[in-house]
Amino acid sequence: MNKNRLEAFSDGVLAIVITIMVLEIKVPHGDKWSDLQILTPVFLSYVLSFIYIGIYWNNHHHMMHTATKISGKVLWANLHLLFWLSMIPFSTGWMGENNFGAAPMALYGVVLFMSAVAYKILQTTLLRCQGQNSILAKAVGNDKKGLISPLLYLMAIASTWVHPMIAGVIYVLVALMWLIPDLRIEKIIEADKTA
Amino acid sequence: MNKNRLEAFSDGVLAIVITIMVLEIKVPHGDKWSDLQILTPVFLSYVLSFIYIGIYWNNHHHMMHTATKISGKVLWANLHLLFWLSMIPFSTGWMGENNFGAAPMALYGVVLFMSAVAYKILQTTLLRCQGQNSILAKAVGNDKKGLISPLLYLMAIASTWVHPMIAGVIYVLVALMWLIPDLRIEKIIEADKTA
Amino acid sequence: MNKNRLEAFSDGVLAIVITIMVLEIKVPHGDKWSDLQILTPVFLSYVLSFIYIGIYWNNHHHMMHTATKISGKVLWANLHLLFWLSMIPFSTGWMGENNFGAAPMALYGVVLFMSAVAYKILQTTLLRCQGQNSILAKAVGNDKKGLISPLLYLMAIASTWVHPMIAGVIYVLVALMWLIPDLRIEKIIEADKTA
Amino acid sequence: MNKNRLEAFSDGVLAIVITIMVLEIKVPHGDKWSDLQILTPVFLSYVLSFIYIGIYWNNHHHMMHTATKISGKVLWANLHLLFWLSMIPFSTGWMGENNFGAAPMALYGVVLFMSAVAYKILQTTLLRCQGQNSILAKAVGNDKKGLISPLLYLMAIASTWVHPMIAGVIYVLVALMWLIPDLRIEKIIEADKTA
Repeated sequence: MNKNRLEAFSDGVLAIVITIMVLEIKVPHGDKWSDLQILTPVFLSYVLSFIYIGIYWNNHHHMMHTATKISGKVLWANLHLLFWLSMIPFSTGWMGENNFGAAPMALYGVVLFMSAVAYKILQTTLLRCQGQNSILAKAVGNDKKGLISPLLYLMAIASTWVHPMIAGVIYVLVALMWLIPDLRIEKIIEADKTA
Repeated sequence: MNKNRLEAFSDGVLAIVITIMVLEIKVPHGDKWSDLQILTPVFLSYVLSFIYIGIYWNNHHHMMHTATKISGKVLWANLHLLFWLSMIPFSTGWMGENNFGAAPMALYGVVLFMSAVAYKILQTTLLRCQGQNSILAKAVGNDKKGLISPLLYLMAIASTWVHPMIAGVIYVLVALMWLIPDLRIEKIIEADKTA
Repeated sequence: MNKNRLEAFSDGVLAIVITIMVLEIKVPHGDKWSDLQILTPVFLSYVLSFIYIGIYWNNHHHMMHTATKISGKVLWANLHLLFWLSMIPFSTGWMGENNFGAAPMALYGVVLFMSAVAYKILQTTLLRCQGQNSILAKAVGNDKKGLISPLLYLMAIASTWVHPMIAGVIYVLVALMWLIPDLRIEKIIEADKTA
Repeated sequence: MNKNRLEAFSDGVLAIVITIMVLEIKVPHGDKWSDLQILTPVFLSYVLSFIYIGIYWNNHHHMMHTATKISGKVLWANLHLLFWLSMIPFSTGWMGENNFGAAPMALYGVVLFMSAVAYKILQTTLLRCQGQNSILAKAVGNDKKGLISPLLYLMAIASTWVHPMIAGVIYVLVALMWLIPDLRIEKIIEADKTA
């Protein structure tokens, strides 16, 4: 069993998921700048979800790169992850069209939480498939961010009962937590090499 | 003739088919949890169809993996399969939006039946192309599930005259029949290797 | 310059073109079989266009397979072909929703004609790139079907002034002209090998 | 880290971006040629945006082809480019549906400007990753067009205060500036080889 088609299929689904969210940004009928104003929450939701799908694609890319074997279980664990990620456009749309209301904000957290859980399941399934001394096992190490993120999503979901914007802040912070070190770690590795 | 582009094109079509079904889950105008309730049948239909496309993608992946030669006939048999699978989003949408009515449930069965027949045709065409002693011939063996499934779909179609939910139960059972052993067989193979 | 990405990009565009036509088959609100009746022309248009895109994909696959070199001009000739093929969903939709009226039937012919011309330009550009003694040059030979098809499309366009269904019959015949020998030629080659 | 999946994912996103613009060309209800007339600006916008995405795809193809190493920063710089290109369908739709009004014309320029900036960032990130003596560094050379284009987009945005069509003319000229020499340079290289 080779991993090429799994990667190709995942790339296809993620490319579509990241792009169809754009269809949710409906072209306004007026032709003034002010006609775009009502699209602000839809646009901001799109940016956030684009970054999240980007993070998942990047992590998926790195994880699969180190994997040498895949199994039928890996295929299904991967489909399970794609299922939850395919829910992101819908929850993004609901969040954006309702100006970040409490229920849509909570649902967005539920989808992010389920995606994080599905990613963890995929990681575990892949690890079992490779053996404990594999490069993947070393690369994963003690995956702190992968454990903290779902907890933060749960907190965000709970926080919508107080105020939906708390959840919004948490979602942005989690995204930055993944995005920034991603860029910083590279720097350290590079610095390490030239040292 | 190489099989890479056939796989890439099939992956593309299946990735789109599995993802555009999400567009059928229309964002509700209200922002309460109760506004999501009417989407329950649409969501359940989506889950079922997602699993079916997943099963087809998995089986397609395995079958093509063992194939060493393809012909013009294989290309068309493959397009024929993709045609019926491309009908799944429409029939899923009709089923979901009409709360699992009799006619939509029957149409869903017709599409599943035609997809199963198309898969069988593709398998036969591929087998002829590889020769009887090929790995594929051995891998297919006596493909019981591939023969029982279409019969169960026909039963499901007929059952909609009595009650549409009988068909629903059959569709779920067939999906589980493919999904569960898929995961179990891997276990046996693994156990076999370590023994 | 390698041809892999050109093939991958073309596969992506064609996979999307062939699949988004399905979005034109709008889910009816009623849940009776009779509610599907009005979709008959839309469905028939979809089948015809699916076959046409399938033919283009197959021919593109074969042509590119023999090509060893590509140039910037080939990339643009390919994009030009994809442009006209991307017009097929729109013209299919117009044709299907208007029950095969004269103008939609003629427009469908125009799109098919332009696609055929674009394919010819791509072929010529590729040939110039490979040299006259290439495998591609031999494979193309005297491409009768590639020359007759555009003439038949022009005839079809003209015929819509008499009756739009004449054009419909021509479109079906041209599709069969490409589809059937495709399957037959393979047979001859196979017979030739075993002889 | 390999560049194959980055290319595959970018191809997927660009293929979808170039194709979903077609969904903006809504099928008219009437079946007369005159019913298509109101679609003229939408169609012209589509042609222009198709060419722009084509230019980006071509340039992306060439740039990535010479790259030998990629980093996490490259992945994000690439996603950043894809983000702005994914805004093209929306701004194309707004421009087309409002008959090239001032604000939509300016927004189109903003999206093109941001895409050009994002491309430049990707180029710089890639260059840093390859080292100054790489093939990419030589291929980029003094990238005049890459520097003039964003300036022209800014001029176009400003010109919409005078008349939106000035911007339209600039967008067409920039597209031709990229399209025509692309084809001409190939000719010179070919002539050079045969000399």
